[in-house]
Amino acid sequence: MKIVDGLKWRYAVKRFDSTRKLTKDQIDYLKEAINFIPSSYGLQPYKVLEIESVEIREKLREAAYGQPQLTEAAHIFVFANFTDYNTDKVDAFIKLTSETNNISEENSNGYRDMLNGIISSMTPEQISTWNSKQAYIALGALLSAAAEQQIDAAAMEGFDKAKFDEILGLKEKGLTSVCIGAVGYRSPEDQNQFLKKVRKPMDQLFEKIG
Amino acid sequence: MKIVDGLKWRYAVKRFDSTRKLTKDQIDYLKEAINFIPSSYGLQPYKVLEIESVEIREKLREAAYGQPQLTEAAHIFVFANFTDYNTDKVDAFIKLTSETNNISEENSNGYRDMLNGIISSMTPEQISTWNSKQAYIALGALLSAAAEQQIDAAAMEGFDKAKFDEILGLKEKGLTSVCIGAVGYRSPEDQNQFLKKVRKPMDQLFEKIG
Repeated sequence: MKIVDGLKWRYAVKRFDSTRKLTKDQIDYLKEAINFIPSSYGLQPYKVLEIESVEIREKLREAAYGQPQLTEAAHIFVFANFTDYNTDKVDAFIKLTSETNNISEENSNGYRDMLNGIISSMTPEQISTWNSKQAYIALGALLSAAAEQQIDAAAMEGFDKAKFDEILGLKEKGLTSVCIGAVGYRSPEDQNQFLKKVRKPMDQLFEKIG
Repeated sequence: MKIVDGLKWRYAVKRFDSTRKLTKDQIDYLKEAINFIPSSYGLQPYKVLEIESVEIREKLREAAYGQPQLTEAAHIFVFANFTDYNTDKVDAFIKLTSETNNISEENSNGYRDMLNGIISSMTPEQISTWNSKQAYIALGALLSAAAEQQIDAAAMEGFDKAKFDEILGLKEKGLTSVCIGAVGYRSPEDQNQFLKKVRKPMDQLFEKIG
């Protein structure tokens, strides 16, 4: 399905059909969309956690004010940012870039210095906001790819982040949770699918300047 | 093209071929992707500006440290957030929702109160960050839809936001610039297209928990 047709078909699923699973190929496709969407400088300053355990999912549901998608969706992606995005991360990125394109690390020094300059000019709070935005680009790609494949999805950001971090042991991994993409198939019982999609008229959302 | 194939084909274009334009149908398709991608509660707390004037584009290029995409891309989308996201915006959203689904405004009061409660519990800074993230989801959809259509694109956030706001007269409109999506066709001269795409190995980007 074309993305736009898929986006018109989709809606924010509240109740998934917990008996319907996704195939490995479907999940791999969604993971590739997340992997290949761009991020600032290509840094991919996030990790994407896949939560399979029923017990953990039940705890996450509690920490997300009881939202049923956490236990009923076929697959749960939790996007998480690094709590200490520092020069080590930039070094790893430069190493990866140099290896991928056969550039000597020496020749990458200018780029490394530029990236380190950007990072050291920002407060930890600013870095966190910047990195979160990159995770939201990836969330947009996940939602687009799911729509294309007629896989249902719900994007979620209403949850207790500190509790999520605790349940998933993220602090020890230097990570903190940002947003969730739940994917699977809608339940026939989910009433939200019968509502019309609410969108601003195009001439309110867009404006030509000049 | 499937999204994932399109994402593998695309790269962050530095030099667009300024002689190649997009058709109205192509631009409308990208605008529909932006319009139909979800946002928090469906609020769409942003405006998307399309910049056509050559003179304005040249000024924007200066305010974006000379980045040539601003003048060479076929089409420029500037995502902007509202500087005062308040209960008036929620009221307008509730009105739109009620009209779309024939719900009496009275029956929407609970939802309105919930949204107003969320907004009034946040500082202006928190609202601004929250709204920016929604614009980044839409940026992710734009990049995905462009990739599907084999339209080249560059996402940009390195620009002087205060200068952009001034050049585009955004302050008077209660808006502030967030990020840019430049779309069009790559120039054969753009050397970046010959670099291999740098991405983390899948087992570094993803991690199964539980």
